[in-house]
Amino acid sequence: MSVDTKAELVESVRATLQAAQTAKRRLATAPTRVKNEALLHMADAIWARRSEILAANAADVDAAVRDGQPAARVDRLKLDEARLEQIIEGVREVEALPDPVGEEVERILRPNGLDIRKVRVPMGVIAMIYEARPNVTVDAAALAVKTGNVAVLRGGREALRSNQALVAAIHDGLRQAGLPEAAVSLVAHTDRDAVDVLIRARGLVDLAIPRGGAGLIRRVVENAAVPVIETGVGNCHVYVDRAANPEMATRIVVNAKTQRPSVCNAAETLLVHAEMAERWLPDAARALVARGVELRACPRAMDVLQRAGISAVPAQEADWETEYLDLILAVRVVDTLEDAIAHIERYGTQHSEVIVTEDEDAARVFLASVDAAAVYHNASSRFTDGFEFGFGAEIGISTQKMHARGPMGLRELTSYKYVVYGHGQVRE
Amino acid sequence: MSVDTKAELVESVRATLQAAQTAKRRLATAPTRVKNEALLHMADAIWARRSEILAANAADVDAAVRDGQPAARVDRLKLDEARLEQIIEGVREVEALPDPVGEEVERILRPNGLDIRKVRVPMGVIAMIYEARPNVTVDAAALAVKTGNVAVLRGGREALRSNQALVAAIHDGLRQAGLPEAAVSLVAHTDRDAVDVLIRARGLVDLAIPRGGAGLIRRVVENAAVPVIETGVGNCHVYVDRAANPEMATRIVVNAKTQRPSVCNAAETLLVHAEMAERWLPDAARALVARGVELRACPRAMDVLQRAGISAVPAQEADWETEYLDLILAVRVVDTLEDAIAHIERYGTQHSEVIVTEDEDAARVFLASVDAAAVYHNASSRFTDGFEFGFGAEIGISTQKMHARGPMGLRELTSYKYVVYGHGQVRE
Repeated sequence: MSVDTKAELVESVRATLQAAQTAKRRLATAPTRVKNEALLHMADAIWARRSEILAANAADVDAAVRDGQPAARVDRLKLDEARLEQIIEGVREVEALPDPVGEEVERILRPNGLDIRKVRVPMGVIAMIYEARPNVTVDAAALAVKTGNVAVLRGGREALRSNQALVAAIHDGLRQAGLPEAAVSLVAHTDRDAVDVLIRARGLVDLAIPRGGAGLIRRVVENAAVPVIETGVGNCHVYVDRAANPEMATRIVVNAKTQRPSVCNAAETLLVHAEMAERWLPDAARALVARGVELRACPRAMDVLQRAGISAVPAQEADWETEYLDLILAVRVVDTLEDAIAHIERYGTQHSEVIVTEDEDAARVFLASVDAAAVYHNASSRFTDGFEFGFGAEIGISTQKMHARGPMGLRELTSYKYVVYGHGQVRE
Repeated sequence: MSVDTKAELVESVRATLQAAQTAKRRLATAPTRVKNEALLHMADAIWARRSEILAANAADVDAAVRDGQPAARVDRLKLDEARLEQIIEGVREVEALPDPVGEEVERILRPNGLDIRKVRVPMGVIAMIYEARPNVTVDAAALAVKTGNVAVLRGGREALRSNQALVAAIHDGLRQAGLPEAAVSLVAHTDRDAVDVLIRARGLVDLAIPRGGAGLIRRVVENAAVPVIETGVGNCHVYVDRAANPEMATRIVVNAKTQRPSVCNAAETLLVHAEMAERWLPDAARALVARGVELRACPRAMDVLQRAGISAVPAQEADWETEYLDLILAVRVVDTLEDAIAHIERYGTQHSEVIVTEDEDAARVFLASVDAAAVYHNASSRFTDGFEFGFGAEIGISTQKMHARGPMGLRELTSYKYVVYGHGQVRE
C-alpha cells in the first residue's frame, strides 16, 4: 500500500471511485431479493472468516497499544467473537427491514393526462468517512447494499487491517449473490489527502457522510465539493420549567446526563427556572453528584448549591458552548421560558432539546420555538436515535437541515426521481 | 455603497446575515395568516411604488446598454408595467398556495409510549445567489416568506437599482403585516467576494441556492461550506426507440428542442435507434430544420441525412457534452436500448431524459435504468417545471440527489423536526 507521490494517491482513490461508478446501475436496479441474499451471505462470510478477521484486528490492537493510544480508543477498536456476533446480528436485522427503493412516495395526475410518480431511488455512490470503530465498516456496507447504494469506505488508520479483513468477507457475500464487489470498497489510503480526494470528487461521489469527532466533520464540511450530511455534534439542554414535576425532572436530567455521557444526545447543560432553583435544584444536584457528575454552575445556581452544601465549579462562558461528552454538567438559572429558549438558540447545536413541564402552554411555545432536530416534552434527550425512533437502523444523526435531520435510517440514504408517463404530450 | 477594503465587505455581509438570524424565529413561528398578509401587502406595495421601480430599472437598463451587454441580457433585465403585473400576480399565486410549515408528515408511536411527530419547519436563512433577472428577487422573497424562511438575496450587478427598489416595496409589505424587514434583505455588494462570504458563513446560512449559468453554480458548489442545492444544468436527451410511434416521436423531439431552446429542460441530443434512422430520421430532421435547428450528426446519422438531401454538421466529441441552450441538436444513431442508456449515463446531467416507444418493456428498462431527476415515457422533457408538475411555484430545478431533486416548490424549501411527547420516559 505504499504510495510514492500525491499524484499516485489521487489516481488510486479516483480509480476506486471509477470502479464504484461502474457498480452503480447494477445496485440501483438490483431486486430486493438479491440485495437481501447478499446481506445474508455477508453475515455468513464474516463468521466463516472470523479467525482471519480477529487476527487482523489483534494486529491493529497491538499497533494501537504500541502507539500509546488511550485505553478507550483501543477498546473501541477491539473485536472478539461476541462483538463479531453482534455485528453479524446487525446485518441480519438490516436484511429483515423493508426495502425503501422503488417505493412510490407520491403520485400526481395532471390535467393534461401526465401521470407523474415520485419514486424512491438510491443516492448512488456514498463515501463514508469515519474513525476507528471497525463495526462501522460492516454497518455502512449493509445499509448501503440494502438501499441499492454503492459504498466507498474510508475508515481510520488504526483499523485498516480489521477493515480489510471485514471487506474481504463483504466481497464474498456480494459475489455469492451475483453482485459486483465494487458495490463496497475500502480506500486503503489512511492519510488525510485521501479524504480530500473523496470530498472533492464531483460527479463521482453523490453523497459524503463524515462520522467522527468535530474536527473531522468540520474539515469535511469546509472542504467538500460534493454534497455532505453533517453529523454528530450535540450540545443538548434540559430545561426544567417552573411547572415541572420535580421527581420527573430529576429522573430525566439524570438519565440525559449519565446514562451514556459519551454520546451526542447526552445533555450538557441544565437550565432551571428561577422558581425551581430553590425547591428542586439541591435534590437533583445530589442525585447527579452521587453518580459522579461534576457541576459547573452560574452564580445564582452556585449560591443555591453552596447553601445546600453541594460542591460545584463556577461556570465560565466556554462551559455553555462545550459538548463535554463526559460526566460534567453546566447549570444555569433562568428567569423565564423565553430566557431558556434564547440560551438554547445561542449555544445549542440544533440536536436534541428538552423541556420538563406540566404546563401545556409552556411546552407548546418551547417545542415550536426551539430549532433542533428533536424537541422533547417530558422525555430524555437520549431517545434521539434511529433504533429508539423505530427505524431499525441508523447511519448517523444529522445536525443539518437539508435532506435529513436527526436520526438517519434507510430512507435517509435514498433520493427520489420523477417517473412520468405520457401518451405524446408536448408543452404548448 | 463604496467598500474600502475586503474586511469591510466581509463585515457588512456578515452584519446582514446576523440581522437575518434575528428574524429567523419570528418567521418560523409566524402564523400562515400573517405570512399571507405580508404577501398581499408586498404585491400592493410593488404596484404603489411602480414609478420608482421602473425608474430604477430604466437606469439599470441604460447602464447595461452603455456597457455593451448583449440584447438578450438587456431584455431579461428590463421591466415594464406589464412585467410588473406578472410579477405581482406571481406573488398573489404564492399567497393562495397551502402553507407547508407545520404539516405533520409522519407520526410514530413507540412501544414505550413516546409520541413522535415529524413536522415540516422552515430551513432558516436561505441565501439566493442569482444573476440579472429582477423578477427572481420578488419570486424568491415571496417563496421564502410563505415558507417561514428568511431570504438573503444576492442578485447581479446589472439589476442592483431595480432590486433595491423592489426590496423597498417588499419591506413595506413585511412592515404592514408586522413582520421584521430583516426577513428579506438584499446584499448590495455585487462583486464576487460577497458571494464567497455568504457561502462560507457556517452557522449563519442554512441553505444556499445558486441560480444562473454553469460557471456561477460550479463556483458556489466548489467553494461553499454551507449546504447548497445545485440547480440548472441540463444536457437532456430524447431517445427514439425502434418501437416508437413516428408521428409522436417527431412531435416530442420538435417540442423538446424548439419550444423554448434557452432553458435547462430543452433537449440537446437526439438518440435514434438504428432501425428508425432510415425510416424516420429524414422526416424528423426536415421538421427540425424547418424550425431553424442546426443538426450535428454522428457519421451514421450524417449518412442518412445526406442521402435525404438534408444538411448537417459532423458532430465532435464535445457535441455530446454540450448544453447548447440554442437551436442546435446533436444526433446519434444507436444500435440498442442499452447503447442509448449508456450514452445518457456517460453524457447526461441527470436532469430530464425521454424515451419514445410503444414497447412497454423497453420503457420500463429505460425508466428504471436512467438516473435523472425526471424520466419520461412518451412526453416532452419540457415538462420538468414546478408549475407543470402542479407545485404552483418554482424556486429552481435541482440537479443533485440530496434533499430535493427536480423542480423545487414550497415543500422543498422546508426541513422537518421531530416533536416528541413523553410522560417522563428515560432510556434504559
